This record gives sequence, C-alpha cells and structure tokens, in this order.
Amino acid sequence: MDWEGRFSPYGMRAGGAETRAFLRLVAQPGIVSFAGGIPDARMFPSALIADAHRQILEDPKRAAAALQYSQSEGYAPLREWIAGYMRNKGVACGIGNILITNGSQQGLYIAGRLLLGEGDIVLTERPTYLGLLHAFAGNNPNYGPLAALAEPAPCGAKLAYAMPDFANPTGNSFSLAERHAVLAGAQAHDVVLLEDAAYTDLRYSGAPLPSLLALDIQNTGRIEKSCVIYCGTFSKTVIPGLRAGWVVAASPVIQKMGLLKQASDFHTAALTQMVLADVAARLPQSHVAMLCETYGARLTTMLDALGAHMPAGVSWTKPDGGMFVWATLPDCVDAGALLKDAIAEGIAFVPGESFFPDKGIKNVMRLNFTACEPATIRDGIARLSGLIAKTLT
Amino acid sequence: MDWEGRFSPYGMRAGGAETRAFLRLVAQPGIVSFAGGIPDARMFPSALIADAHRQILEDPKRAAAALQYSQSEGYAPLREWIAGYMRNKGVACGIGNILITNGSQQGLYIAGRLLLGEGDIVLTERPTYLGLLHAFAGNNPNYGPLAALAEPAPCGAKLAYAMPDFANPTGNSFSLAERHAVLAGAQAHDVVLLEDAAYTDLRYSGAPLPSLLALDIQNTGRIEKSCVIYCGTFSKTVIPGLRAGWVVAASPVIQKMGLLKQASDFHTAALTQMVLADVAARLPQSHVAMLCETYGARLTTMLDALGAHMPAGVSWTKPDGGMFVWATLPDCVDAGALLKDAIAEGIAFVPGESFFPDKGIKNVMRLNFTACEPATIRDGIARLSGLIAKTLT
Repeated sequence: MDWEGRFSPYGMRAGGAETRAFLRLVAQPGIVSFAGGIPDARMFPSALIADAHRQILEDPKRAAAALQYSQSEGYAPLREWIAGYMRNKGVACGIGNILITNGSQQGLYIAGRLLLGEGDIVLTERPTYLGLLHAFAGNNPNYGPLAALAEPAPCGAKLAYAMPDFANPTGNSFSLAERHAVLAGAQAHDVVLLEDAAYTDLRYSGAPLPSLLALDIQNTGRIEKSCVIYCGTFSKTVIPGLRAGWVVAASPVIQKMGLLKQASDFHTAALTQMVLADVAARLPQSHVAMLCETYGARLTTMLDALGAHMPAGVSWTKPDGGMFVWATLPDCVDAGALLKDAIAEGIAFVPGESFFPDKGIKNVMRLNFTACEPATIRDGIARLSGLIAKTLT
Repeated sequence: MDWEGRFSPYGMRAGGAETRAFLRLVAQPGIVSFAGGIPDARMFPSALIADAHRQILEDPKRAAAALQYSQSEGYAPLREWIAGYMRNKGVACGIGNILITNGSQQGLYIAGRLLLGEGDIVLTERPTYLGLLHAFAGNNPNYGPLAALAEPAPCGAKLAYAMPDFANPTGNSFSLAERHAVLAGAQAHDVVLLEDAAYTDLRYSGAPLPSLLALDIQNTGRIEKSCVIYCGTFSKTVIPGLRAGWVVAASPVIQKMGLLKQASDFHTAALTQMVLADVAARLPQSHVAMLCETYGARLTTMLDALGAHMPAGVSWTKPDGGMFVWATLPDCVDAGALLKDAIAEGIAFVPGESFFPDKGIKNVMRLNFTACEPATIRDGIARLSGLIAKTLT
C-alpha cells in the first residue's frame, strides 16, 4: 500500500519531529546539554517508589486491583489526595473535579480535543510551550497573542493558554496583577483559560502566587463557575517516567474529558496511580525543598555564568523557578546555525524559533539548568559564550 | 462559566457512558456478572510482575531510566521482544515497525486520528467492538458493512476494522478463506485494514490461523507494502492494568502514529515497558496454556449451561476462544428491559444493541465467561435462562 496521501488532515498535521531531535541531543555522551527539559534522575525518590511498588504488589488484594482494568476518571484515593493538595492552594474542589491523565500533556491534549474546532482561535504568549503546540496541532487552530485579552476589541478566541509560573520556555511568571488581568480579560471576552501548572512547585525565590484557578474561584464563588481548566503533574516534583498528571475543572468539563480519556486509552495504569497515592502521602516536604535548593543553586550558577561570560548584546530572563532561562542574542545571530557549531564544541541548547505558534524569531535560545551539575553549567556557559562572541566578531 | 454549547463537535461526540454503566455492574457485590470484559485477576502473574519491578527499581541505573522521560516510540528492548513475537507469528518486521501504546485501545484511537477525516466511511462487522466505536466517535465516520469489501461496486471506504480471532462481542472468528477474502477486498477497494488481535492468544480449540498482517505480508512480499495496521496487547495474556499494547505496521505509519502518540501523552510509562520486557521474556509458555485451560473450561461450562437451560428460540455462538458468547433471543425480547429484571435477580450482562455502529437490534446480549468460576456460571446461566423463559410465557 502506498501511504502517501492516505493520512487525514488531522494526521498530516502531527508535529513534534523537532522535540525528538532535541531529546536525542540530551542523550549524547560527551555533550553538555542545556537542551532537555528534564529533571535530574539522581534526585528521584526511587527508594520510596520502589517500596510503594513492593507493598502494593505483595498484598494480593491490592495487587489484583493494581493490575486489573480500572476507572477512566482515575483511582479515587489519588484523586482525593490531589483534591486536598489543590485545596491547600486555595482551590476548593472535590474528586468530581479531578481527572487523572498520563502527565499534564494528556490533559492539554484532551482539553484541545474537547474545546477546539478547526480554525478556532487560541491565545498564547509568544513564545509558548512547544508541547502545547504539538497537542493542538491536529485541531489546526489559529493563534493570537494572550495580550488580546486586555484589548477592548472582541478577540473571538475560544481558549487562552497560560503557564503563570516559570513558563516553558522563558522562565517568566505572571505577577498577581497580571493574573487578575488575564482573568478579567477571559471573563470580558468569554474565553476558556487553560492553566498549565507544570513548574509551580519548583520555586527558588519570591513568594508563591495563587493560581488562575484559585483566583477565579475567589472571583466567581465556586469551581463550578470557573472558566479555568487547570493541568497539574507529578513529573517535575516526583518523577516524570510514570506519566501521571491531573486536570482540575468544573465537573461538566471533567465528565466530558473523562469520556475522551476513556475513548483514547481507557485509564492511566492503576498500579501507577496506587503507587503515586502512596508516594504523595509519604513524600516528605523536604523532598521538594531539596529539589528547590539544588535546582535553585544551578539557576544561580547559570545566571552568574551568563553575566560573567556572555558578550554585550546578549540578554536573558531571571526566573524565580522552573527549569529554563531564555536568552536573546543580537538580531544578526541565528540560534539554529549556532547550534551546529555548538554541538561540534560539545554543547547543546534548543533554538527558540520553534516555541512560537507562528513565524518565530531566530535569535533566541532556551537553556535548561536542571539536568547538569553547577561545574558543568559554568564550563558549558563559558564555552557557549565564547562561541557567540566569536560569531559576533 | 456556562459550559453548555462550548464543546467542539469532536468533544460533543465523546461517547462511552454505556461502558461505564456496564463496568459498574461488574463491580457490584452479590451480582453474578457476565457483563465485564475482563480477565480473572486470580490468574495474573503477580509474583513475576512484583519481582520485575523490584529488580528494576533496586538497580540505580535502571531505576533512573525507568522513572525518567523516555521515547515516544517505546522502550527498544520491549519493541525488540514484540518484533520477535510477531516474527514467530509469520510477521517479518523490525522495531521500526513497532509502536508501544497504552493498551490496544490507544492504537485504535491513534489509527483513527491518523486516517479518518470527518464523514469518512469505515467498514465493520455488525455488531462490532464498542471501544472501537468510542475511539472513532470524535472523527464522526459513516459506517458500512465489512461485507462491502466482497462486492464489486466501489465502497468508498477509507478503513475497514476487523477482529479476526474470537471477536468482541460475538466470539466469532474468520476462517482462512474469509481472511484471504478480506485482504483481496481491501486490495480491490484500496482500503486500509485495522486488525485488532486483542484475543488471538486466548484459543481453547481449533488450530491457530495467520493474522491478516501475516497473510498480507505473504501476498505483498514485505510489511512495508502491507495495508494492515495491527493492534496487539498485553491486557489479555499478561495483565490489563498496566495499559500496554502495541501497533505493528509499515514504518511510515509507525512514524506518524509515533508523532500523534507524542502529542497526546509523550510516551507510555518507561517503568511499565521495562517491566513488561522482563515479564514477557520470563513468562513461561505454560502461563498462557493455563489461562486457556481455565477459560476454556469456563466457556465449555457456559455453552453446556446454555444448552441445558435456555428456552427454545434462543441461540448463541460457539467460540473457539476469547472472552464472550453472543446470544440471540426471540425477536420480541428487549435485552435492555431484561437486564433490569436480571439485575433485580443478581445477574448482569451487556445488552447487545450498543455494539452496533448504527441502529442495532434489541434481542441480543453479550455474555462474558472469563471472570466467574464454573459453578457461578452454571448457576447464573440457569437463573438467566429461567428469567428469559418467564419473559416468553
């Protein structure tokens, strides 16, 4: 069979080849990689995870439930734990407001399937999260700027996407005033807000700010009236490899997303959910504190190294958390071309162009600081800076 | 926010509420349930699964890989194992022909996303697998009969779906001649074949027959020329709860499906895949033999009980494997109405109407025989038969 021309318009739009190329960069030995977006495996709570697996699988009754088919909405005790976690963050909700997904990526994907028709307008920051662009690619949306919410003119958007804390790829966060403004804009324009909280708990400086969902519940009185669909994940603070995240929203949204989840893969593995319910309950607060201390020191190292070595004309963000610094090079530098030279020197990063929903700019790069030790970061940034300086001469 | 009217046409079509209602029937204590489609948890190889988890999670290097982000196509050693398993079944393929999915359901879902545009024609048997109808619901296909492949008139179909071995819900299988005829029809009409092999290894009588994919490779010379997309799963022969299955197809299909998999949830949990690679390699052949002996005895019990107790005018299929018997009642009996009375008597089954892609018939029921002990099956069928006899008087 000749497959050419046989894929649907939806299938043809499937993107993501770039992501794979970048992930391969991470994996190459001898490369100092600022390209990934992954946590440091040395800080996984592996012993706790191993113990939770052991306890569940050695108990015949729990093992039978863990290995059997289960419910699409998710394992009730895990949803209870998440509801409690969300309540601690000012989100009054019950388990009817929680859907378990395969990482927050599946939450974004299903939200797109639920809400977007062909050509609908989606508002995002520019740049925005590449995984969101991939999740939505099949729906073929048109993209507009998040700032359209602040305009009086009707924006016609169906959905606005935001990562208010330490966004991927910039590391930038919304101030409290900006959060209120986004909510007011969403209300004025009657737009659904898709909030991505992937990095929220990785805060290294400054005081935590309420989520858009928490603020919207303050404004509207209860979650059932909120316009926010919130996607959370265990990937950054516990481990990514088990692929577990969650969606919090008004119950009609959760019910519909649950049906879409069922249609796409029935449910997230029951064992995974039982393990995470155990681990989440037993993981000491000190675990996230340890992550923040370690990653925060790496961020400081990266910012210091950038300040010490980057030539004039290069600027970068100063995040309060997350995993990324976003650097802007002089207009004349094409980060894609620079990457080829950098790889020859044993350094990798992600050129920023692919993070734009429409035509991007070429003189930007995303730098991850969580996967390398401080000494490696210092060395890598010094060499990368030297390369950029050479390009500018 | 008022969610009414805010969902996309795709989202509005999300189905599956029936499935949940049936799953709830399975779970009720005191109910003899023929409603589920689940294996018996007492036969899970739990000790082996526990041991594989322990070995992986106690090895720091393997644990780090198991809990970290991974590749969308799947864990290479698991794909290698599957490629070997498929080669043993006459499917010459390499790991570039294998994609790991969250159960075969995700394979069906992604194949639908890849191939179907709005209103495209899909051919199926009538009745067909309910999960397929849910997986495809968002794409809003039009359904035609699989028999259209045998007609000389152009059928205009994009895709034909078939479960050649012990189909859900009927238990029926295709003969070798029927398999050849389906392939010839697919070639004549230029239609993609989506083959669902969920139950293939659960054979209790008769000799195994080659898959559509194996026959098509015989016909066309190599998998890259085949029109078949094959979905397999570990759910029936190992355990369903870890949600792991696979797709085998020509490499351009696997590449595109891999991108769609990445967009929807990045990858299937790495730990799950490493565990299944271990378990698949270590699971003795006697495990599937034991499943077949146990389930085969239950099937015999059910067929014997149906023969002994069902009133005249009721007929049923005599499967060689799988999990289901399909019973046809006299025209005047509505299985949906019967179910209400049956539940009052402590017996559950699935009315057959929802397994039809279009208007179904009401006098049919699906009976699962894998989840109950023989004595329970005998008792349940006797009482169900009595209820039907009462309805007919």
